Amino acid sequence: MIKAAIYGASGYTGFELTRILVSHPDVELAAVTSRRFAGMPVAEIYPALSGLTALKYQNTTPEEIASACDIVFLALPHGVSMNIAPIFVNAHKKIIDLSADYRLRDLQEYENWYGPHKSGSLLSQAVYGLTELYAPEIKKAKLVANPGCYPTSIILGLAPALKNNFLELSSIIADSASGVSGAGREPQITSLFCEVDGGYKAYKVGKHRHTPEIEQELGKITGQKFNITFTPHLLPVKRGILSTIYGNFKKEVSLKQLHEAYVSFYEREKFVRVCPLGQYPNISSVCGSNYCDIGVHVDKRTNRAIIIAAIDNLIKGAAGQAVQNMNIMCGLREDAGLQAVPLYP
Amino acid sequence: MIKAAIYGASGYTGFELTRILVSHPDVELAAVTSRRFAGMPVAEIYPALSGLTALKYQNTTPEEIASACDIVFLALPHGVSMNIAPIFVNAHKKIIDLSADYRLRDLQEYENWYGPHKSGSLLSQAVYGLTELYAPEIKKAKLVANPGCYPTSIILGLAPALKNNFLELSSIIADSASGVSGAGREPQITSLFCEVDGGYKAYKVGKHRHTPEIEQELGKITGQKFNITFTPHLLPVKRGILSTIYGNFKKEVSLKQLHEAYVSFYEREKFVRVCPLGQYPNISSVCGSNYCDIGVHVDKRTNRAIIIAAIDNLIKGAAGQAVQNMNIMCGLREDAGLQAVPLYP
Amino acid sequence: MIKAAIYGASGYTGFELTRILVSHPDVELAAVTSRRFAGMPVAEIYPALSGLTALKYQNTTPEEIASACDIVFLALPHGVSMNIAPIFVNAHKKIIDLSADYRLRDLQEYENWYGPHKSGSLLSQAVYGLTELYAPEIKKAKLVANPGCYPTSIILGLAPALKNNFLELSSIIADSASGVSGAGREPQITSLFCEVDGGYKAYKVGKHRHTPEIEQELGKITGQKFNITFTPHLLPVKRGILSTIYGNFKKEVSLKQLHEAYVSFYEREKFVRVCPLGQYPNISSVCGSNYCDIGVHVDKRTNRAIIIAAIDNLIKGAAGQAVQNMNIMCGLREDAGLQAVPLYP
Amino acid sequence: MIKAAIYGASGYTGFELTRILVSHPDVELAAVTSRRFAGMPVAEIYPALSGLTALKYQNTTPEEIASACDIVFLALPHGVSMNIAPIFVNAHKKIIDLSADYRLRDLQEYENWYGPHKSGSLLSQAVYGLTELYAPEIKKAKLVANPGCYPTSIILGLAPALKNNFLELSSIIADSASGVSGAGREPQITSLFCEVDGGYKAYKVGKHRHTPEIEQELGKITGQKFNITFTPHLLPVKRGILSTIYGNFKKEVSLKQLHEAYVSFYEREKFVRVCPLGQYPNISSVCGSNYCDIGVHVDKRTNRAIIIAAIDNLIKGAAGQAVQNMNIMCGLREDAGLQAVPLYP
Repeated sequence: MIKAAIYGASGYTGFELTRILVSHPDVELAAVTSRRFAGMPVAEIYPALSGLTALKYQNTTPEEIASACDIVFLALPHGVSMNIAPIFVNAHKKIIDLSADYRLRDLQEYENWYGPHKSGSLLSQAVYGLTELYAPEIKKAKLVANPGCYPTSIILGLAPALKNNFLELSSIIADSASGVSGAGREPQITSLFCEVDGGYKAYKVGKHRHTPEIEQELGKITGQKFNITFTPHLLPVKRGILSTIYGNFKKEVSLKQLHEAYVSFYEREKFVRVCPLGQYPNISSVCGSNYCDIGVHVDKRTNRAIIIAAIDNLIKGAAGQAVQNMNIMCGLREDAGLQAVPLYP
Repeated sequence: MIKAAIYGASGYTGFELTRILVSHPDVELAAVTSRRFAGMPVAEIYPALSGLTALKYQNTTPEEIASACDIVFLALPHGVSMNIAPIFVNAHKKIIDLSADYRLRDLQEYENWYGPHKSGSLLSQAVYGLTELYAPEIKKAKLVANPGCYPTSIILGLAPALKNNFLELSSIIADSASGVSGAGREPQITSLFCEVDGGYKAYKVGKHRHTPEIEQELGKITGQKFNITFTPHLLPVKRGILSTIYGNFKKEVSLKQLHEAYVSFYEREKFVRVCPLGQYPNISSVCGSNYCDIGVHVDKRTNRAIIIAAIDNLIKGAAGQAVQNMNIMCGLREDAGLQAVPLYP
Repeated sequence: MIKAAIYGASGYTGFELTRILVSHPDVELAAVTSRRFAGMPVAEIYPALSGLTALKYQNTTPEEIASACDIVFLALPHGVSMNIAPIFVNAHKKIIDLSADYRLRDLQEYENWYGPHKSGSLLSQAVYGLTELYAPEIKKAKLVANPGCYPTSIILGLAPALKNNFLELSSIIADSASGVSGAGREPQITSLFCEVDGGYKAYKVGKHRHTPEIEQELGKITGQKFNITFTPHLLPVKRGILSTIYGNFKKEVSLKQLHEAYVSFYEREKFVRVCPLGQYPNISSVCGSNYCDIGVHVDKRTNRAIIIAAIDNLIKGAAGQAVQNMNIMCGLREDAGLQAVPLYP
Repeated sequence: MIKAAIYGASGYTGFELTRILVSHPDVELAAVTSRRFAGMPVAEIYPALSGLTALKYQNTTPEEIASACDIVFLALPHGVSMNIAPIFVNAHKKIIDLSADYRLRDLQEYENWYGPHKSGSLLSQAVYGLTELYAPEIKKAKLVANPGCYPTSIILGLAPALKNNFLELSSIIADSASGVSGAGREPQITSLFCEVDGGYKAYKVGKHRHTPEIEQELGKITGQKFNITFTPHLLPVKRGILSTIYGNFKKEVSLKQLHEAYVSFYEREKFVRVCPLGQYPNISSVCGSNYCDIGVHVDKRTNRAIIIAAIDNLIKGAAGQAVQNMNIMCGLREDAGLQAVPLYP
C-alpha cells in the first residue's frame, strides 16, 4: 500500500482527492490537513463520506506529514505551495502539486502573471502532469505540477490538431465554460447560489492566469511560441468544463481526416474518448469520472476547425488527474481508483 | 459470473441498472432490451457509457432473454411487468421487478389503485425487496418486488420508531420531495427543464399510488393496519428523495433514546447511515450512492418526532436496491458493485 | 410623490426594495444606505439596475436619512434595526422594519428567541404588517413590523381554516421550503452554489426563530395560545417559499366547504389567489410577483386538511409586502408599484 | 386601445407575448389561439396568469382572428406562418411574425436552410424587425419578420464594430449559449430537466439555421457578403442568451475607442445598455427585461476584439422585441408595456 497525504484537504479539490483516495485499492490515505477544520472528522465537514473514513483534519507541519507518507498531494492556493513543496523535496517524498506554482517553466512568466516565486529553483525539476502527453516523464518525476482545469481541456483538445500541423497558430481561440466548484469553497459573493443560478457570464476576459500555461504547452507541442485568445465563462453547474476551440486550417482538411487524427492520437488512452463523427461532448456525460470527451467538426464555410472538449473540472481537471499521475509515478495501473462511471443523469 | 439481463433498459431506472452492472465485479450483463432504441448501442443513447460497454439495445422476446440469463431485472412501467414476469417465472429464472406490479400483497388493493392485474396469482410468491427489513426472505426469493422510491425512504425512516412502539399510528405524516428522474425519461411537459427549474410544488396530493405500499409495510411492522398522510413534492434536482416524517409520541421519548433506537436498529447495515445527533441528511450527501441517511429530532414543544430520511431515488430508491437484492439472492457480498462514494459536491 | 429611503439597502431584501421602488409611480427613492458599498452606484453592485437609477449607496446617519424622507424601510439584520428605529420614531417618520425586531408583542418571548432587545418599549406601538389581516391597523401605523417570509406563507395559509374553527390546534404542522435568497447575500459556505445545487435538506429543525412569530399570529386569530411544529427546508432555487400545512379536522369538513371558506375569505384581496379545486400552487407561478397562491385538499383517509401556500420570499415575503404596507400607510392604491406579472417560465 | 391577437399562443413565445400584452397599457389582447388547448383558460395552462386574464385559447380560423384585431402576432413554428400570414396580409392587418419564415430576403437561401416556401412573394414586403437598426422601416411596415434570438444578440453585438469598419470580416466567430426555453414547450427528451440540468453542450455545430439570418444582416451592415462561424450551446437555465463574439482588428483599435464606438452607437437606445469599461454582461442581469447588455474588450496579445452581448431570449430575443416593434408600428412609446425591471437575483 502506498501511503499518501493531502496537504490542504478541506477545499473542493482536497475533498475530491479524499473522496477518490479513500476507495483507492492501492493507497492508504495516511493524513489530511486543514487549518480551519483542525481536529474535526472529515465526515463531519463532508457528510457524504460518513461511514467511509474516520480521518480527522490535522493542523500539522509539512515535516510531520512528510514522515508519515510516501507521496503528498498539495491542494493549496497558488503562492502557498511554493513554501511547502521544498520541505517535501528535501524529505525525498514524491509530490503532486495541484496549484499553479510549478506549472510554468519560465520564472519570469510566472512572476508576470502570479507575483514573486519563493522556490523558483524547483521549476526546472517539475514535470507538467498532463498525463496523456507526458507519461514517461511523470513516471520518473519527483515533483509533478498538476495541470489547471481549463488547460487540461484545451491542451488535450488541441494536441492532435497541432501535432498534425493542421492549424494556423495565430488563429486559435478557446471559449471555455466552467462549473462553480472551480472557484473553490471559500465563501465569496460571486460563488453564492443566488449570484450563479440562472446566470452565465464571461469573467477575467483576456487576463485569466491559465493563459500562459496553455500557451507554454501549445508552444511545446508545436515548437513555436504563440498567443491564443482564451475566454472563461461561469456556468451554473457544480462540476464540468467545456472548451469550444476554434482554429483556421492551414490547408484543406476533411472532417474524416480530422476525426481520424484524433482517434489515432488517443487510441491507447483510457481516459480520452473521441466522440463518434457528428457527436459532441456534454459535461454531464463525463461528470463524476476522469474522462475527457472530445468532438470535432470542420466548418467548411469558413475553413475552420471546431474542437470541443469536456472534463469534470474536479476530476480530470484536478484530483483525478493527480491520482492518475500518482498511479504512474508509483507503478500502479493508470486507472487504479479512477474507474468511477460518469453519473448520468 | 452471474448472467444478468435488463428488460426495458432505456429509461432512467434501466439505464442506472446498466451503469451499475457494467462495472459490477461478479456480473456479466448479457442483454438489455428496448423497443424504441432497438439495434442502437447503449453508448450512443447514453454517451456517458461510451467506451464502457459495447452492448446494443435488443428488441427480443422475454423467452429469448430468459434463455440468456440467470437473473432478469424488469424495468418496465406498471402494468407491463405483470405480462412479462410469468414467462421468467416459468423459465425458472430469478426476477427482480422494479415496477409496482408485485409490491402489494392484497390483489384488491392493487386493483383499487392501479387497475386490473393480469398475473395476480404471483403476488403471494413475491417478496418485498426492502433489503434491510427482508434479507432472509430475499435470499430465498424467486421474484422480488423492488420497493418504490418514496416507500424506501419512508419505511426505512419509520421502522425503528415503529418497532420501538414510540408513535401514535394515526398521527403519521410523510412530507416527501423527489428529484425529476423519478418521473422517468418519457418526454412530457411537466418534466421539461423550464417547467421544473426554479419551481417547487406538491403533486398527486392525497392520492399518490405509493400510499398503499407504504401503509402495507408499516402495517406489517406494527401488526396493525392504519392510514398515513403522504404528500409528494417535485424538486428541481435530478436525483434524490428526502422525506420529512412527523409522528406524535405515545409517551415521552428523549432525543437520546430516539437516536439510540435508530443507531441500534441499523448498526449492522452497510447502506443506512444514522446522522450524528443534531445533524440531518441532505440529498446531495447520498447522491450517486446506495446510502440512506437518516436524522432524527424530538420536538419537545409538541411532543412530536421529526424523522428525516434521504436517498438517491435512482439508486437506493430503485436500481441500487435492486442490485443489493440481486447480490443477496445470488450469494454475493451485499455491497458488490455498490461501493460508489456519493458524488459531492 | 412620497419620499422613501432604504436603510441597509445592499442585501437581497434591500435590493428588492430598490428594484420595486425605482419604478413605483408614486415614490421618489431619495436615499439608499450601505456601509460596505458606500459611495458606489447601485447599478455597479447590481448591474440589473443599470440605466434605471443613478443612486449611490450612502454611509449616512439615520438622522440625515430621516431628514430626507417621509418613510423609511429598515432592511437590516435582526438586532440592528432596534438601534436605528427609535431615531426615525423620534423624527416622526413612518417606518417599515423588515427585520424581526418588532414582530413579537411579548418582549420576553423576543428575548428568549433572539436575545436582548434595546428598544422593547416600541413593541407595543408596532403593527404586524401582514397586510391581508391588518390593513386597518397598518393604515394608522407609524411603525410596521413587516412579517417574516415563512410566517407570511403559513399565516395566510391557515387564517381561513382557523377563522372557521376547522382544525384541532394541537395537530398543526407546517413543512416549508425556501429558496436561498432567504439566507441573504452574506458570503457563507452554506449559501454557495456548490453546497446548494442538487441538494435539499431540513435545517434549524425544531428551532427556527420564525416559530414564535407564527404562533403569536395564529394565537391572535384563534384567541388561544398553542404550539405548532415547523420545519424549514432549503430549496435549490433563488426565490420562493412553499409551505405544506397539515391539520386534523375537528369535525367533518368537505373539500367544497374548505375551498369555499378560502375563496370567500380572500375574495377582496388582490394578492391572494386561491387555486381552483384540485390544483395546487407552484413557487414558479408566483416568482417575481407579490402574489400568495393557496391550494387546499381534504385527505379523507385521515380526516386531515392539507393546505399549500406559495409566495416569492423576496416580494410577498419581504420587500413586496413592505411596499404594500407603505401604499396603505400613505393612502396609495394597495397595488401601486406591485403589478409585476409572475415571470414564468 | 390597439386590438391585438396572438396566433399560436400556447408555446413559450406565445405565452411570453400574452404575459406582456395583458399588462400593456395601450393594448387590448382580443384573442389567443391554440389547437391543443382550445377552450381552456390561459390561466389554467399557465397559472402564473391566474387572476390577470380571463382569456381562453380559441381554435379559430385566421380569417376570424383578422376580423377581431388590428395587429396579429404569429407565434407559430417555422413553415406554418407562411401559410397563415397571407390571410392577414389580405385582410390589411399589421403582422409581426415571430417565426423564421420572412426573415431572409433571398428565397433560395431560405429554401436551402428551411425547405420550400409557400408565400415567398411576401419576402420582399417584410421588414426585418431588429428595432435598433430598422425603426424607420418598421414604422411603415405591414409585415415585420421578428428576428431570431441568437441573431438579435449577435447583430446588436457586432453592429457598432462593423459600422466603424474595425474588423476583418472573415475572422468573425460567434460562440453563443442559450437557455432551454429557446427550444420551446414541445415535450422532447433533449429538453427534459434531467437531460439539461448540470450539463452544457454545443449543438447543431456548424449548421444552425440562424446562420444565414445573421450573415444576411451583417452583410447589410457592411455592404459585403461574408461567412461567420456560429456555435450555439445549451445552457442549464430557463431564459437568456449570451454571445461571445471574436473578430480580428483590421488596424489598431484601443479599448477606449472601441468602447466609445459602442456607447455612441447606442446612446439613444432605451433597450441597449453598454457596460462600463472592464465590465461584461450576465444573462441574469437582463432576465425578465427587454434589455440587451453589451460589454467589449480588446485582447492586445492577439489584436482581437471580444464582444459579449446578453439578452433574455424570450423578451428581447422574441416577444419583447415583437412588442417593441408593435409599439413603433402603432405610434406608441417604444417602451410601452416593456418597462419590467430585470428580476435579480
